[in-house]
Amino acid sequence: MSETFVVVGGDAAGMSAASKARREDPDLDVVVFEKGDWVSYAACGMPYYVKGDVDSLDDLVQVTPDEFRTERDIDLRTNHEVVGIDPEARTVTVAADDDRFEQPYDQLLVATGARAIEPPFDGMGLEGVFTIHDMDEADAIHTHVTESHPETAAIVGGGYVGIEMAEALASRGLDVHLFEMLPHVLQPFGESVAEVVEDHLRDRGVELHLDTPVEGFGGEDNVTAVDLESGTVPADIVVVGVGVEPNAELAADAGIEVGETGAIATDEYGRTNYETVFAAGDCAEATNVVTGEPDHVPLALTANRSGRAIGQTVTGTPTPVGGTAGTAIVKAFDLGAARTGILDESRAREAGFDPVSVEITAPTRAHYYPGAEELTVTLVADRDSERVLGASVVGREGVKRIDTVATALHSGLTVPDVEQLDLAYAPPFSPVWDPVATAARVLSGSLERPE
Amino acid sequence: MSETFVVVGGDAAGMSAASKARREDPDLDVVVFEKGDWVSYAACGMPYYVKGDVDSLDDLVQVTPDEFRTERDIDLRTNHEVVGIDPEARTVTVAADDDRFEQPYDQLLVATGARAIEPPFDGMGLEGVFTIHDMDEADAIHTHVTESHPETAAIVGGGYVGIEMAEALASRGLDVHLFEMLPHVLQPFGESVAEVVEDHLRDRGVELHLDTPVEGFGGEDNVTAVDLESGTVPADIVVVGVGVEPNAELAADAGIEVGETGAIATDEYGRTNYETVFAAGDCAEATNVVTGEPDHVPLALTANRSGRAIGQTVTGTPTPVGGTAGTAIVKAFDLGAARTGILDESRAREAGFDPVSVEITAPTRAHYYPGAEELTVTLVADRDSERVLGASVVGREGVKRIDTVATALHSGLTVPDVEQLDLAYAPPFSPVWDPVATAARVLSGSLERPE
Repeated sequence: MSETFVVVGGDAAGMSAASKARREDPDLDVVVFEKGDWVSYAACGMPYYVKGDVDSLDDLVQVTPDEFRTERDIDLRTNHEVVGIDPEARTVTVAADDDRFEQPYDQLLVATGARAIEPPFDGMGLEGVFTIHDMDEADAIHTHVTESHPETAAIVGGGYVGIEMAEALASRGLDVHLFEMLPHVLQPFGESVAEVVEDHLRDRGVELHLDTPVEGFGGEDNVTAVDLESGTVPADIVVVGVGVEPNAELAADAGIEVGETGAIATDEYGRTNYETVFAAGDCAEATNVVTGEPDHVPLALTANRSGRAIGQTVTGTPTPVGGTAGTAIVKAFDLGAARTGILDESRAREAGFDPVSVEITAPTRAHYYPGAEELTVTLVADRDSERVLGASVVGREGVKRIDTVATALHSGLTVPDVEQLDLAYAPPFSPVWDPVATAARVLSGSLERPE
Repeated sequence: MSETFVVVGGDAAGMSAASKARREDPDLDVVVFEKGDWVSYAACGMPYYVKGDVDSLDDLVQVTPDEFRTERDIDLRTNHEVVGIDPEARTVTVAADDDRFEQPYDQLLVATGARAIEPPFDGMGLEGVFTIHDMDEADAIHTHVTESHPETAAIVGGGYVGIEMAEALASRGLDVHLFEMLPHVLQPFGESVAEVVEDHLRDRGVELHLDTPVEGFGGEDNVTAVDLESGTVPADIVVVGVGVEPNAELAADAGIEVGETGAIATDEYGRTNYETVFAAGDCAEATNVVTGEPDHVPLALTANRSGRAIGQTVTGTPTPVGGTAGTAIVKAFDLGAARTGILDESRAREAGFDPVSVEITAPTRAHYYPGAEELTVTLVADRDSERVLGASVVGREGVKRIDTVATALHSGLTVPDVEQLDLAYAPPFSPVWDPVATAARVLSGSLERPE
């Protein structure tokens, strides 16, 4: 009798695992339960659908449900919600329409993802107030903008989703106000990035309200205003993007261990406290490559990669899911900003490091070459070991350079190591010293101790 | 009495060393002899001066001779040629105008650079035939194009200088023929890059003559034709770019050891077989980070970095010069191409590896995001150890991704390591799996042994 691999959740982690397991073991029964309609979609592309750069939501779907069923021979059941897990009996309880049934499994992957945090604001239920975490929401925002012709948008939250939605709605011709309760946008990217991005957002007409907590939204049926302590700001569409939280309740209710981050705790193979139960994607923790500690970084690459690794592990080839460096990159109009590793000083201290950092600005190309732009690089290292802990970059081009530091973090490279990297140089692509190497060179100077 | 640090050669390596040594030790006498007029110039920018992207040769000068003298307090003597070294007596013999004198040193840096190879072609002396390795030559080509209005250019050599000059002269409106004796251009970049570049050069109107050795040049005073075995091709300007060779004779004549590559042999601090004599830049060897063997990679970054390190070492802080990965990048019209490490199969075998490689093509951005271009990535690894040996990339954007692999080479990362790198993803910047990670993923599959 063939074994059964059950996957809960049909997005990046779940479908990567299902596809890989199917390819590795043609005899395995692979069953995926997805509570909604959409599977395997690029959530990160949704702001560009709203903006109009992407014509159709279908363009964001990598593989359709039918293709999974017919071409990949995966028993994919959309509109099927897993409502319970019994890890001792190795069954899940599935609800679909009026039906409810038990599905036995030999191995289980929990890939339930994350959901947009819905703050307890007054007026969250008004017409024209949206969060954005799934395709139906993206569709609703797009429809609202196209059909109701709102003129003034309020974005609540200055994280990357907030920034991307600010660009999207401004590009659709709306006046955009962005509200952030902290002193700066893009908190995980650090202040040096935030200040450059904030200047650029203002240049592009976005009205920034920093240090400004939102209290709620006003209006009868349709939203008409954002309520602040200091008064109200008119708005006829609101997008709330204040972060996501892991869908870990299903697992927690079943006795599957949840970590301090609130996401499902896993080992290096993505295994939970139950031998036959795995977790991956936005609902699960991953190991931070800098601190070695569990972290919750709900991003697409981690989900895809860990899903794929688990697909190999459940078919007999134990494969580590890999760590996370917390690498992220975001476009804000003409700017790019990226970060990796540990930038926050207090977080570095908590992890036992003595952080020292440098911020430099260098051209993206040879200074004499046409089109050179300024790139600001912040590099953080541990004073004693000289090990690189993290970095951020911001500029109009060349921000994928963050990958150099992300790679260095995986290898535990020191600042002098990074200074000596043989990075690519020709005038159209870089100055002789790549800005990342320049940052290392300058930081190296400040690491030198008096003799 | 203060010590004297003498530098022979005033370009990247020499001036980096002089500047760093001066900053580290204000009491040191720092004397630089440069046989020409130009110091500290960006030779890599010369094709863009010829093309017209850079207005003046002076723009390519990083720091002027006067600035070195007055602001950096360096005793820089241009038009002073060092014609002899006596490592036992610790003196150099200097020729300037009709003068000739001995200069004692405590420590010496030989940074004599490299020169363009001048093949023994008939007609090398004709008007309109140029090599391009220094600023005077760049100036002469620029003047010739501007004043003599040549219509048809012949570029001899399909290396990066040849490609860059083809772009420069085509952009000035000339018909360009490019002659390469090997079957492909850009030999160190490998075939997969060469084929893409060749197609693009042809698209942009460059007539390629591959597998075509040049025998000489015809003409009375001015060049009029390129002579081939099979006939002649008309040309009223010729640029010969068939590589460079190290200026190692001065050192060799003094008993300073020259390596198998023909460049000056050095240890990890850039020291020659004489304790007080260092060598750096295009005249010196560097250690290849993949093979651990001496290599000769005459590129700007290596020169700058090793010069700087030697400036620290001679002032009492021993600093390794760092290795080379042979990283290079070149623009060819709208394309970029880059390479790092060991790509050549026979060279990998010589170094004791069993090379296995993969070539993939992936988009530079999310497939649905506007402006995504195709990037071709070739990744080479050792079959047994799975260690990454080298890579190339070619495409219309995103070729700085080679830095990810260059960084991996410095750390000795394996293919599964690269597959697990947490590289930056957002739709405008990359697909979820960065093309480099995709190449690693595919190569990983072919490394798996049957069980």
